[in-house]
Amino acid sequence: MTEPGYHDVELAARRIEGVAHRTPVLTSRTADSQAGAQLFFKCENYQRMGAFKFRGAYNAIAQFTEEQRRAGVLTFSSGNHAQAIALSARLAGIRSAIIMPLDAPAMKMRATREYGGEVITYDRYTEDREEIARRLAAERGMTLIPPYDHPHVIAGQGTAARELFEDTGPLDVLLVPLGGGGLLAGSALSARALSPDCRVIGVEPEAGNDGQQSLRRGEIVTIAAPKTIADGAATTHLGQHNFNVIRRLVDDIVTVPDEQLVQTMRFFAERMKMVVEPTGCLAAAAAMLGAVPVEGKRVGVVISGGNVDLASFARFVS
Amino acid sequence: MTEPGYHDVELAARRIEGVAHRTPVLTSRTADSQAGAQLFFKCENYQRMGAFKFRGAYNAIAQFTEEQRRAGVLTFSSGNHAQAIALSARLAGIRSAIIMPLDAPAMKMRATREYGGEVITYDRYTEDREEIARRLAAERGMTLIPPYDHPHVIAGQGTAARELFEDTGPLDVLLVPLGGGGLLAGSALSARALSPDCRVIGVEPEAGNDGQQSLRRGEIVTIAAPKTIADGAATTHLGQHNFNVIRRLVDDIVTVPDEQLVQTMRFFAERMKMVVEPTGCLAAAAAMLGAVPVEGKRVGVVISGGNVDLASFARFVS
Repeated sequence: MTEPGYHDVELAARRIEGVAHRTPVLTSRTADSQAGAQLFFKCENYQRMGAFKFRGAYNAIAQFTEEQRRAGVLTFSSGNHAQAIALSARLAGIRSAIIMPLDAPAMKMRATREYGGEVITYDRYTEDREEIARRLAAERGMTLIPPYDHPHVIAGQGTAARELFEDTGPLDVLLVPLGGGGLLAGSALSARALSPDCRVIGVEPEAGNDGQQSLRRGEIVTIAAPKTIADGAATTHLGQHNFNVIRRLVDDIVTVPDEQLVQTMRFFAERMKMVVEPTGCLAAAAAMLGAVPVEGKRVGVVISGGNVDLASFARFVS
Repeated sequence: MTEPGYHDVELAARRIEGVAHRTPVLTSRTADSQAGAQLFFKCENYQRMGAFKFRGAYNAIAQFTEEQRRAGVLTFSSGNHAQAIALSARLAGIRSAIIMPLDAPAMKMRATREYGGEVITYDRYTEDREEIARRLAAERGMTLIPPYDHPHVIAGQGTAARELFEDTGPLDVLLVPLGGGGLLAGSALSARALSPDCRVIGVEPEAGNDGQQSLRRGEIVTIAAPKTIADGAATTHLGQHNFNVIRRLVDDIVTVPDEQLVQTMRFFAERMKMVVEPTGCLAAAAAMLGAVPVEGKRVGVVISGGNVDLASFARFVS
């Protein structure tokens, strides 16, 4: 498959129109005065199933052929992509199977099943999920849509930043959470087309800075599974499609420590009355707590999702 | 002062325009399927200072004469009205003094001071706040704006429902949290003018059903201070101005138990990614958990505020 371009983001925007929410862009006087900048929060925690992942999953499934539709869609994910695929498949009227670790959060498994997904569990200490996926794909003829390393997924994720720029006009800086790179690559495509002078910066958890290392070295660096509360960004390496876009279009990648994610979660709950998951706080933490110089600038901040189980949320904010 | 009418709500709407937020009206497929109805949530938790109280406080202060402005505004409140007065006074460029109990939540005292209010503490077991207020008003010439029993406050609070009807058109039922009656009286004024056939229903905590008793008896009933987590509705009796409007225009008053408020807080956090304070959950609990028959109807649900300290919030939702 060829690399996605901005044209693919535009096509994705048409496919998801009226299906995905056009999420609000919120502002906060308190956040602005803390950052010394004008911040525009693109709130994907209000997206369907609670995260931007719905955009990419739906965009991929919407392009299935009749034959692909008959067999259904397959993926592996312990996170938001699982729910995104299950919900998108239900809306498209096709079957979905999601391979999840036995010890995935109960809430995420339940939500995936509620959306109609067949959950297939595996032991992540003794089994290889990619091998299970290959076997199932072969046995059942299902099409694998991975969580980030796929041009249709990247194009779909790019629609969030596209909507942001449509609402705000050109920006000086765009800050985007970074895990496998679907959201960052897609956002960079939209930024380059709609706000060419905007600096595009990915934000990773400090414990898992493989993206930063990869951008500096010019090749994908793989790290050990990082320990971070930002579970959506606890990836060990960027996807190949994602890296190809990121190395061309992204200006920098910075990191923030977990304690700043907690501080930012508290800020969102206390001052903006929003529930944001730790991964969703990455870009906001970078803007408000100094990882990126933003003083006097107009800054887009992508909040990637709000799916945190309430017991964890309670621990973080109390 | 004469009773407020819908015309006063319209004048209030002009006064607060561009100063108060026009808060969003949100919907949720999950909430709708749970209620078997179409619910429209008017989200005053996203109002400035986090609750609808800003509307009434600002509307009252905006009508001060030059002489009243020189001396400033005075109130007593341990809750959202304290912050509402402090912020409104700062925006109007006048002084404010807020009489708060010594044991008021630290977060609310801090917020009131941050908005520039002078906090005057008293011991609520040995001192009478209304006497302190009278003394200060006499000594300093300040104008007392009480939390709910005031026509300008009622008219200001009515602007929230006015915006709701502007956004949704006529509704079958409007559910409104009820404490002292400012929000319910104001909402009823807007409902009668903009959606004459809409049933207007106040929702109280089960432990403090003085409003329900008052409406049934046709006179204000005073109860002992109720024990409820809905601190914004832990009033002992309706205001006189409020009752005069409520007895004329409100169809019914129902109650919900505290455990349903907790269940609703959890729903808002988990499914709609919103922080709502217990009092703010009253109307939604009534719609979603059966206190009011809403099946097949279009229902307005006012979420009154989101100011809950994070430690309490964490306890409630975990």
